[in-house]
Amino acid sequence: MRATIIYAAGDVRVEQRDKPTIQEPTDAIIKLAASCVCGSDLWAYRGIEDVKEPTPMGHEYVGVVEEVGSAVTGIKPGQFVIGSFFASDNTCEICQAGYQSGCVHRQGVGGAQAEYMRVPLADGTLVATPEQPAPDQIASLLAASDVLGTGWFAALAAEVGPGKTVAVVGDGAVGLLGILSARQLGAERIIAMSRHADRQALAREFGATDIVTERGDEGVAKIKELTGGLGAHSVIEAVGTQESMMQAIRSTRPGGHVGYVGVSHGVELDGQELFFSHVHLHGGPAPVRGYLPHLIDLILRGEINPGKVFDLELPLDQAADAYQAMDERRAIKVLLRP
Amino acid sequence: MRATIIYAAGDVRVEQRDKPTIQEPTDAIIKLAASCVCGSDLWAYRGIEDVKEPTPMGHEYVGVVEEVGSAVTGIKPGQFVIGSFFASDNTCEICQAGYQSGCVHRQGVGGAQAEYMRVPLADGTLVATPEQPAPDQIASLLAASDVLGTGWFAALAAEVGPGKTVAVVGDGAVGLLGILSARQLGAERIIAMSRHADRQALAREFGATDIVTERGDEGVAKIKELTGGLGAHSVIEAVGTQESMMQAIRSTRPGGHVGYVGVSHGVELDGQELFFSHVHLHGGPAPVRGYLPHLIDLILRGEINPGKVFDLELPLDQAADAYQAMDERRAIKVLLRP
Repeated sequence: MRATIIYAAGDVRVEQRDKPTIQEPTDAIIKLAASCVCGSDLWAYRGIEDVKEPTPMGHEYVGVVEEVGSAVTGIKPGQFVIGSFFASDNTCEICQAGYQSGCVHRQGVGGAQAEYMRVPLADGTLVATPEQPAPDQIASLLAASDVLGTGWFAALAAEVGPGKTVAVVGDGAVGLLGILSARQLGAERIIAMSRHADRQALAREFGATDIVTERGDEGVAKIKELTGGLGAHSVIEAVGTQESMMQAIRSTRPGGHVGYVGVSHGVELDGQELFFSHVHLHGGPAPVRGYLPHLIDLILRGEINPGKVFDLELPLDQAADAYQAMDERRAIKVLLRP
Repeated sequence: MRATIIYAAGDVRVEQRDKPTIQEPTDAIIKLAASCVCGSDLWAYRGIEDVKEPTPMGHEYVGVVEEVGSAVTGIKPGQFVIGSFFASDNTCEICQAGYQSGCVHRQGVGGAQAEYMRVPLADGTLVATPEQPAPDQIASLLAASDVLGTGWFAALAAEVGPGKTVAVVGDGAVGLLGILSARQLGAERIIAMSRHADRQALAREFGATDIVTERGDEGVAKIKELTGGLGAHSVIEAVGTQESMMQAIRSTRPGGHVGYVGVSHGVELDGQELFFSHVHLHGGPAPVRGYLPHLIDLILRGEINPGKVFDLELPLDQAADAYQAMDERRAIKVLLRP
């Protein structure tokens, strides 16, 4: 089969690999309907994370179950399924508390930018749709696999709700879907921080009521100005850099909540500033699995259309072009068809 | 009048100063019934914080109102009152959200280790008891002024509640009263981290069910061992050092809550570790004012006796001895009588 492999920064190739097989009785093999490139894939592509050896890429996936291991009882071949970037048993105490991405049996899931992939702990990890989805629902279901689920977690971690003013730091797919999530969760006012016209337009379509183009200290000052000098109740951080984290923390009012989901790179938080900021800080790898049933339902009922973050679609063979387009910010997010 | 002044690390003196007077129409002057030395006073005493000029000390206080400014309507001369270390208007949006210590008109309150003190924003800051308290209630009411209110906030910030396992890092007065608070809030299991027999005994009296004497990585391992490998649901941090913060974060299960109230000194948090820890982090200067009515009620009804943290009582004239006793850990907390 064809699979996408990263060899080094900037060097992504689609090549022939063996089709994955069942390794554990709890595994499933999926024939992918679609996959995509994640903002977090760019850390390696840009050389910020080391590539130690050629590595299969991709952790966002939807597809049809091809085969299941002997211990899998809830998922059947032929079903259309969505899963998340961490496999989880969905039964341990941590999963039951809603933190499937911290499952005591957690395993990374990879190699989704390919024709087939193996998913461990299939019963706990995969959620099947009631029937085969329509072709125009695939993109939105794929978004649920990571960027929507992550934006949703960020909004929950930031305690978004009715009457709240929400600020969103980061205008990538996760930030944009954080806006959609905040809207769904009843936020009164949603301030998108973005300086790109195309992303601003999508932010507004997803529910942003205000746009702030300033960054850093100026961005913080603008948020304060829009919130009576206090800061936002809830701030979503969807980048993962020192600047974006400080922008998020400083944009939050005392007692407010920061939900941070940008994978942290080189961030150091000063304890004393955090102490006196009085914010709540919560985030990490999103427990997408827990939200999938609700998010899938919203998508299939046509209430949300998160698939709009995919502004470029390419055949799997052009995965290298997909990485390049996202790296150069020519595309918000690229969908790959095997 | 007599007042306690710090001149330099290790140099605390009681000397004559002018009796404070009304400066603003919202002020009150209080004749102190009791004051005390705070763990946070020791940062300066130990030279960890600079003493730039001779500074009046003390921010924990109970006493009788002597005089009020012309704009004060809710507090009257003759009333017995308790206040907190930050003056607050108790009406702004931040106060109303429960963060009086982040009040938009917040002012520091100081000079309580004296015969008299000035309290700004008296209507918002002070809470009067229904009648003059009995002599044996004074110590507990004084504890409410800071250490109990701070322990209470830590427990709330750590989302302590029924069915939860709570770990407490720090066996000073705040940590011990965090235990009392956790018990009041219905925690199922309370693990005190302490290696001092006298503090362990008080921890158990306040509600600790387990004692862990190990610190750092060994302390974390012990908490994990006591919680099925997962970590505590809620962890109270009441020290403020790098070691204590990391001990608190690493003792918390994914999705759990750290409530940190030790004034942060030299703490740097690694963003990536925090991200993957999946904990909730909340803390800062406790909004004690908001809790005072409830805590005073619990004390006057005899339901709690937080004054037990005062294991040494000295006349104000011996304030220097009080600092020394706490610095040398010969006393948990010293009450000063003017």
